[in-house]
Amino acid sequence: MTEHMSPEEFRRHGHRMIDWIADYLEHADRHPVLPRVEPGEIRARIPDRAPEQPEPFERIAADLDEVVMPGITHWQSPNFFAFFPANTSPPAILGDLAAAGLGVQGMLWATSPACTEVENAVLDWLVDLLGLPEDWKTTGPGGGVIQMSASDSTHTALVVARERAGAPAERVVAYASEQAHSSIEKGARVAGYGRVRTIPVDGVYAMRPEALAAAIAEDRAAGLAPAFVCSTVGTTGTTAVDPVRAIGEVARTEGIWHHVDAAYAGSAMICPEFRHHQDGLELVDSYVFNPHKWMLTNFDSSVFYVADRRPLIETLSILPPYLRNAATESGAVIDYRDWHLPLGRRFRSLKLWFVLRSYGAEGIRAYIREHVGLAAGLDARLAADPRFEVIAPTTFALVSFAHTAGDGATDRLAAAINASGEAYVTASRLGERPFIRVAIGQTRTGREHVDRLWDLIDSLAEPVG
Amino acid sequence: MTEHMSPEEFRRHGHRMIDWIADYLEHADRHPVLPRVEPGEIRARIPDRAPEQPEPFERIAADLDEVVMPGITHWQSPNFFAFFPANTSPPAILGDLAAAGLGVQGMLWATSPACTEVENAVLDWLVDLLGLPEDWKTTGPGGGVIQMSASDSTHTALVVARERAGAPAERVVAYASEQAHSSIEKGARVAGYGRVRTIPVDGVYAMRPEALAAAIAEDRAAGLAPAFVCSTVGTTGTTAVDPVRAIGEVARTEGIWHHVDAAYAGSAMICPEFRHHQDGLELVDSYVFNPHKWMLTNFDSSVFYVADRRPLIETLSILPPYLRNAATESGAVIDYRDWHLPLGRRFRSLKLWFVLRSYGAEGIRAYIREHVGLAAGLDARLAADPRFEVIAPTTFALVSFAHTAGDGATDRLAAAINASGEAYVTASRLGERPFIRVAIGQTRTGREHVDRLWDLIDSLAEPVG
Repeated sequence: MTEHMSPEEFRRHGHRMIDWIADYLEHADRHPVLPRVEPGEIRARIPDRAPEQPEPFERIAADLDEVVMPGITHWQSPNFFAFFPANTSPPAILGDLAAAGLGVQGMLWATSPACTEVENAVLDWLVDLLGLPEDWKTTGPGGGVIQMSASDSTHTALVVARERAGAPAERVVAYASEQAHSSIEKGARVAGYGRVRTIPVDGVYAMRPEALAAAIAEDRAAGLAPAFVCSTVGTTGTTAVDPVRAIGEVARTEGIWHHVDAAYAGSAMICPEFRHHQDGLELVDSYVFNPHKWMLTNFDSSVFYVADRRPLIETLSILPPYLRNAATESGAVIDYRDWHLPLGRRFRSLKLWFVLRSYGAEGIRAYIREHVGLAAGLDARLAADPRFEVIAPTTFALVSFAHTAGDGATDRLAAAINASGEAYVTASRLGERPFIRVAIGQTRTGREHVDRLWDLIDSLAEPVG
Repeated sequence: MTEHMSPEEFRRHGHRMIDWIADYLEHADRHPVLPRVEPGEIRARIPDRAPEQPEPFERIAADLDEVVMPGITHWQSPNFFAFFPANTSPPAILGDLAAAGLGVQGMLWATSPACTEVENAVLDWLVDLLGLPEDWKTTGPGGGVIQMSASDSTHTALVVARERAGAPAERVVAYASEQAHSSIEKGARVAGYGRVRTIPVDGVYAMRPEALAAAIAEDRAAGLAPAFVCSTVGTTGTTAVDPVRAIGEVARTEGIWHHVDAAYAGSAMICPEFRHHQDGLELVDSYVFNPHKWMLTNFDSSVFYVADRRPLIETLSILPPYLRNAATESGAVIDYRDWHLPLGRRFRSLKLWFVLRSYGAEGIRAYIREHVGLAAGLDARLAADPRFEVIAPTTFALVSFAHTAGDGATDRLAAAINASGEAYVTASRLGERPFIRVAIGQTRTGREHVDRLWDLIDSLAEPVG
């Protein structure tokens, strides 16, 4: 068939799109971080029906500015301090572009061997880079796979753990701290777990392992089947760190699956000075970290490791006739189809490969350390000011603070910062207490942006007393 | 922070990457469709450890040709006739590129309103374009959402159906024809279903609704809880079409969830002449089709519709404090986080929006009809030749045939075609009988490619008698 857009037109429009992205990323700080639109406002700019006839690509591309941009929350602005970052980088964008151009499906090794083998190689690189156990390499009994999100990775672990428990689902129990991410509860609910027990935390919001052991004992006595526990290294609330080794010892004693959610903090482990936070990984069955949060690789790129790939594959492998092939039958290859729920998969390792090579390990370490240093600096400024209280340790690059004048003052400060358009922070709560989360991790965030955020906090905060 | 790759460098490397893709897609037919590599061969070209220092981007990009390309199965070659297509198009690639550049997370309306509202608008367009029930629009009680793959969409439906059944998971039963896709069995296993019953098919491989009714009755008598049935419109084996209305009537009577898997054939419904194959959609609870198969939109783009969004949201909604916001609380917006398992999500509707506008509905219809016409032509040639038997109706653009000299001759023919490098077909089986699947649907596949495939079949097939 004749292509609708000729190769020459694709080049022309493609070069313009690259330039549009270059301009956008260079000047992302010129936009108010939060858009000022009401529900329905963007949609009202779009016709109710698809066009019957082709539209010129120039007009379509122009709608990025005219229709889309007014409704964009600027995650790529250096003034974005909300949630956790979802950062990206030029080499990641180009890796993703190459993957879109190649358009392969990597469901089996045989359906595009390079898609599987580059992923094997890059995820094995990361085992060394993050100081993970050697066994987790695809050359050993374990291995890594790229999933879409930490929710998918954790859900996969929950399903394997449920199967291993061998009890009716409604009696199967998952455990996580009361500070764990909502994906544990959601994944367990989706996997049909009978119960998710939240375990109390200590003064720095880390899980209390003796409370875990007590909860398990209580559940066993009630005839339930404890199956899964999640240690979080870097909680979403305050980047608290659960004691991985102590939880692992409980899990080992009890024979339950031990999963580590390091979705955010995993990226920091490329710097050896943070690795004590994940001490005890030899007592872990699975681990998730998201390079799409803080390792310069755009979504989706959630890396899921297992210490032993057999129970994973046994749970997820189904081989219909149209997927049979000699390579699979030889046992010499990895078929990633058996490592997650979806069958089809993009060549997602390309962007990670591009990023790791383009920055080099040293480049990524420098970038992580810069953000951690900036967070420490902001923490020190807040701690020195009587108007503010830092409410949890700044362990990585998230600063959690509240106004000392009370909850109302904290709420009003967060609202004022976000209404300014100059920065975006998250207004969250610990129990009923409001606090402000400042996550420093956007690719282009530097000292000047954090200084400006401090000025904003300083000028907008109500006086005390 | 200073960017590692400057905006000017990004432009330069980006323009080159666009040109590399333009060259690749223009000449994808020059590569043997199947790569000739042994397991481990690609990986052996990659160092065992990540580089400590940055590598120049030129060297990284050069490895696309030197390391990656020898291990690529060319899904974008016009001579790719295997599996189902995973096609793409220039506007889709540029839409995906724009999404990577914007780098937003659309988990909530509030985290980037345009990401949600463009998706709402485009999926509502598709309701009209495919002749789906008006109720399935987001402006009505239902709505659509983009998921990663049909496996994810179907799994989501299975989970909602399991919850609705309100029985212990191990007693819950899903039903699908013996020709249904493996994602039903996998999804049900992942969702903890006690059983998946495969229902017999008729002479054209369509589910027998009376056999479904009998199976349900038998299961109820045995104390099980029938919860979910999947009608397939266009099976993976032979594009068989289950009787949606008759199955829907059984499902309605029995009060079980009725899901339609139109992953492949859904794209054809843009042409009104195919819509009789999905008659009965008012008796359907959920529906999946994959624009990333046959609608020029690169993976991932699986569209999942529900007739009523309430049970979906009730099953999947969990709202932790860091995600609370005024727009969500107002009820005036859609938060897609509650429509699937993952929390994070890319701006995937951009590429679909670009494709629908760039081709126009008429352009996509012409393209579907061209492939369907080419398949009919190949079917006629095979049917007229005593060496071949077309073993299932060519309903869309998949031709299923066998050699009349027996299974060995069929197996050898498939192997010879694939070993030639000139085309790639799937060697599959119906029961124990081998057959060859020719799926015509790659974006650039035209008459000349199907003519050449016929010449190849003609020259490689053994004589009869």
